[in-house]
Amino acid sequence: MNPKKAVLELDPYVPGRSKEEIVNEFNINEKDIIKLGSNENPWGPSSKVKTAILNEVDNVNRYPESDLTKLESEIANYAGVKPNQVIIGGDGADEVLDSLIKTFIEPGDEFIVPLPSYTYYEFLLKPYGAIPIYGNWDLNSNTLDVDSILNSLSDKTKMIFLCSPNNPTGAVINEEDIKTILDATNALVIIDEAYIEYAESNHVNLIKDYSNVFILRTFSKVMGLAGMRIGYGLSNSENIEYMHRIKPVFSLTRLSYVAALATLKDKKFIEDSIIKGKESRDLLYEGVSKINKLHVLKSQSNFMVIDVRETGFTANELSYELLKKGVIVRDCTSFKGLDEYWIRISIATIEEDKKFLNILKEVVN
Amino acid sequence: MNPKKAVLELDPYVPGRSKEEIVNEFNINEKDIIKLGSNENPWGPSSKVKTAILNEVDNVNRYPESDLTKLESEIANYAGVKPNQVIIGGDGADEVLDSLIKTFIEPGDEFIVPLPSYTYYEFLLKPYGAIPIYGNWDLNSNTLDVDSILNSLSDKTKMIFLCSPNNPTGAVINEEDIKTILDATNALVIIDEAYIEYAESNHVNLIKDYSNVFILRTFSKVMGLAGMRIGYGLSNSENIEYMHRIKPVFSLTRLSYVAALATLKDKKFIEDSIIKGKESRDLLYEGVSKINKLHVLKSQSNFMVIDVRETGFTANELSYELLKKGVIVRDCTSFKGLDEYWIRISIATIEEDKKFLNILKEVVN
Repeated sequence: MNPKKAVLELDPYVPGRSKEEIVNEFNINEKDIIKLGSNENPWGPSSKVKTAILNEVDNVNRYPESDLTKLESEIANYAGVKPNQVIIGGDGADEVLDSLIKTFIEPGDEFIVPLPSYTYYEFLLKPYGAIPIYGNWDLNSNTLDVDSILNSLSDKTKMIFLCSPNNPTGAVINEEDIKTILDATNALVIIDEAYIEYAESNHVNLIKDYSNVFILRTFSKVMGLAGMRIGYGLSNSENIEYMHRIKPVFSLTRLSYVAALATLKDKKFIEDSIIKGKESRDLLYEGVSKINKLHVLKSQSNFMVIDVRETGFTANELSYELLKKGVIVRDCTSFKGLDEYWIRISIATIEEDKKFLNILKEVVN
Repeated sequence: MNPKKAVLELDPYVPGRSKEEIVNEFNINEKDIIKLGSNENPWGPSSKVKTAILNEVDNVNRYPESDLTKLESEIANYAGVKPNQVIIGGDGADEVLDSLIKTFIEPGDEFIVPLPSYTYYEFLLKPYGAIPIYGNWDLNSNTLDVDSILNSLSDKTKMIFLCSPNNPTGAVINEEDIKTILDATNALVIIDEAYIEYAESNHVNLIKDYSNVFILRTFSKVMGLAGMRIGYGLSNSENIEYMHRIKPVFSLTRLSYVAALATLKDKKFIEDSIIKGKESRDLLYEGVSKINKLHVLKSQSNFMVIDVRETGFTANELSYELLKKGVIVRDCTSFKGLDEYWIRISIATIEEDKKFLNILKEVVN
């Protein structure tokens, strides 16, 4: 069977490498691996999650409830919006985004994304026949190039993606810049706040004044639940209602549901995760800054990118050298808008941070 | 923001009723509710699932592995195909189906579905701009009206949905009929085998001879994992590879992954679930058959539909009477192709079956 044209043009699927393969290839003990590749919370989930899951595990033969109002209310409380301004997704923010696209995008519509930014937007949008228009993220100042967005606007612009803090560069977008864009367009402006808890400011208040703002959030970062696949979106209630018409009804697993509720109630866990996350980030930033030949961008997130060109290694080569010593980092070569000399590292425990910095020094010098 | 036309035409979203609401409205003890509405496995998940989840729960801060080859192999073994003929979904069969649609469907394509059949196909297809063409399921003989499918074929037919055993009528489609359809078209023939373990025969061998066969399966029924949202598809490896290009990478939660593996290894649990399921079905069929004014269709699944028109109740009224006594059944009024006089019941424990049959007799007579 021939797939549709948009799919035929995508790269063939190559499965990722499993942890097992890495362990075997480099003869590393699994527990010695330092994972700096996926921007996770290294301290694990809230202890309340374990209890909640234990209490629910005997019911997993039953479908999830289609009524998620309790979780919607808790999220609304947490985020400072109304419950009918919340939509919850069962594959992290990815499903929320897919539902948003399915609700609004038609073939031939354009979407704008500054480069470099999160690459998954394009992966999700292309199968719907949407056309990417690239703006620019200024790497020197680590700020959004607002004019590059304004200059990319056309009659066909349907969505604009602003990631704040921006993945992979780590900086937030300032609110005046977002307003400038909002005032210039009727397109939907998606503000991806996956990492917002690590930043100094969020943009949730824009929902009150603009009907075309959509904020994307996740339980995969500070909340420590990446493996449970929980995300949410915040927007005016009309947009949310339209999305509900097509969103999968049962996609959040029973265990994910109770895990999300338990985490939101554990305020101490969330606070601690933020404090420890910032500590770890600052320690890594200071440490990397002191290493000759490396240039690291200041971040308000739980990750940072490092320009490695002066080391003589490409990002691919350096990642491989680190992998041999049990450290997984993100080779950013596949990020459009970055050349082959950038790696991204995420926070780990303080102990792992120190180990990593020593390994990095050793490899680079 | 205005959504696209296909979404604007869908019914506005109305959230479902929670179990809590039912408990409060009818003043019923939650543990006394008999759930015959959702075709679940009433005996719960395999005991091995609990252990597997406990062993994994501390890792839920980590993203799922993108490499699912171990589970693909186990499923291939179980289903009798090759591992590269398997694709796994993280929202039960619904996500597999959504990925299939996203891979092959373009706006204006037609899909054929006999009525009555599973209503979710249409829910998933319409947002992609696909057009439903309705065939016919003969309720008198409880068989697929093959000619109605053949007569619906056109140049625009892209998919044909054959549910076997058919939801909600319970009968399987015989293989000669499927071959007649396959020989008449190049469209993708999707055979939905969600309930296949309760039936006498499956159609998996058709994959060998036809490149346009796609078989849909789930862990939500016999496997007892509806709340964990695990589904899979079987087809030739080329179709599977195309789907992988657009399928969500991380949609299966970490706990769902280990639960699926543990269940497939627990052969005894699967066998027992099938035996007990058939026993319960046969007991319900015999019991309902003996009640005057009710006509029940013979089923090879874990559910059956009942024509209730002679009771003087509509399905909606009868469902409400049963709900007052703590029994949840499926009012089939929303199934296209059934009028307002059908309910569907699914298997429960033998004790619940007997209780239900007594309540049903009482309400009907």
